[in-house]
Amino acid sequence: MNESELLQHIYDRAVSLRGRRDILVGPGDDTAVLSIGNQAVLLTVDQLVARRHYDPAATPIDAIARKAIARSVSDIAAMAGTPTAALATGCLPHNFIHADELFDRMAHWARHFGCPLIGGDVATSDNDPVLTVTVIGSPHPVRGPVLRSTAKPGDAVYVTGRIGNSYNSGRHLAFEPRLREARALADMLRHNLHALIDISDGLGRDAARIAAASDVRIDIDTARIPLHTDAPDPLRALAEGEDYELLFTAPDSLQLPDAINGTPLTRIGSVTAPATDRPTGAYATGNAGNIVNLEHAGWDHQ
Amino acid sequence: MNESELLQHIYDRAVSLRGRRDILVGPGDDTAVLSIGNQAVLLTVDQLVARRHYDPAATPIDAIARKAIARSVSDIAAMAGTPTAALATGCLPHNFIHADELFDRMAHWARHFGCPLIGGDVATSDNDPVLTVTVIGSPHPVRGPVLRSTAKPGDAVYVTGRIGNSYNSGRHLAFEPRLREARALADMLRHNLHALIDISDGLGRDAARIAAASDVRIDIDTARIPLHTDAPDPLRALAEGEDYELLFTAPDSLQLPDAINGTPLTRIGSVTAPATDRPTGAYATGNAGNIVNLEHAGWDHQ
Repeated sequence: MNESELLQHIYDRAVSLRGRRDILVGPGDDTAVLSIGNQAVLLTVDQLVARRHYDPAATPIDAIARKAIARSVSDIAAMAGTPTAALATGCLPHNFIHADELFDRMAHWARHFGCPLIGGDVATSDNDPVLTVTVIGSPHPVRGPVLRSTAKPGDAVYVTGRIGNSYNSGRHLAFEPRLREARALADMLRHNLHALIDISDGLGRDAARIAAASDVRIDIDTARIPLHTDAPDPLRALAEGEDYELLFTAPDSLQLPDAINGTPLTRIGSVTAPATDRPTGAYATGNAGNIVNLEHAGWDHQ
Repeated sequence: MNESELLQHIYDRAVSLRGRRDILVGPGDDTAVLSIGNQAVLLTVDQLVARRHYDPAATPIDAIARKAIARSVSDIAAMAGTPTAALATGCLPHNFIHADELFDRMAHWARHFGCPLIGGDVATSDNDPVLTVTVIGSPHPVRGPVLRSTAKPGDAVYVTGRIGNSYNSGRHLAFEPRLREARALADMLRHNLHALIDISDGLGRDAARIAAASDVRIDIDTARIPLHTDAPDPLRALAEGEDYELLFTAPDSLQLPDAINGTPLTRIGSVTAPATDRPTGAYATGNAGNIVNLEHAGWDHQ
């Protein structure tokens, strides 16, 4: 059972949440959503694991700290929300001489992204560092939380920025969580901002998640994928992760600008109702004109 | 730098929270407290690390899952709060065959304690499991969050239940977070429930934390410490951790019952104002009649 399957299994058991009206969104989206005092609150947690998400021998402490915070902040952006506070844990090697610097920089980056550390925990072990960051956020005041499950036939599919080769280029350590872009999209599109996700696990897999959650078909026009200049192959870029750009859908009838907050917006696909010969899911055109199912493309932490 | 020192360092940097009026309590208490929609919200995260908090070779998966959840729930009890929702992460060994069972049992125990899992993350590594559980809770509706920093001269110091030998006896895997006891104390004592903490890091060290946060002197009467029958030495029990009982202070003039919710209440000490020859801190009487400073007693995850 790989990580995606395990998470899906966890989500499947969330049916027991149904009696709890204050749990507006349970497991399975970029964040959970709780109703507290008549306000919707976003809650997410993510891990940063040495040798999996960064190379401990080659990564400055500040960059480790930044990525730990920014990964969870990106989940808040993926709901069009605003981060407000964070909790951090570190399970660190005995005699890890950078523990203080690491938490200092996590505190710095948490403040930088608007969610100061209000708690945390430190433990030691014989192993490489494992960090977790929980972020609390508030949704967009007008649009509310933007889910994965609300893409609609007739939507176009857009991606922010450029993608591909994030890990090898080192961009995975310096990405900017698309908080401002997500908020500006929600400001501009309001309830026409239908579905939203960040593509940390890969554009292909995350497009498939929107398709599955919304019960629609998404077709990606491979040739339109905006690549970084050092990422030559769009099919490979579809299957890579660690981009932390936003993928969203909005009615194709709307004319969107080419950029928002200085970040390119690119229309890369379309949403249709599933049909017998065109099932639910996300698909792209392969190099030989074949159709590639994107469900199992992308980064999976097996 | 050990874990306590590192956490203290993190807390010291929390001064930058002061501009944020919605952060009612930052790092340094059992939970943080955020104001959301005019409601106070408790937030805590704790880790459960193999070979540190349990023996992976000898501990059933269900017991691991229970302890992971119960540790964080105990932090909510230590504010006299009620847990409402939780997020869990697992960094698990590759091909860990119990991953599904572990998350299944964490989901079970989270529901059991009233805080169903609404999110989480799974990653894999080459190392032993590291679990984290974030719990969100609500404070007591009348008393509000009960902090460490509000003990007052003239208070008596009480402990719930019995302590000592928790790890070796296996009780650390089966403890009951004192949610009901804490709420009943807050119901009964209201604003006379002055300070409250759980003693997961050891009665001695946690008494010292109340003393330091409240700027008072606490004297523990070693002979009064209620021990489990298999824990022969009260000084050793003071220095052990993993008991998850409650330590609290209330005016000594009040007559408290011998038990609450069926759990014994024992008066074990007193709170006085510090003086030149009696400095701030928590102290106990040693076997030779000497005075033991409890600040460095207790469980530290070095």
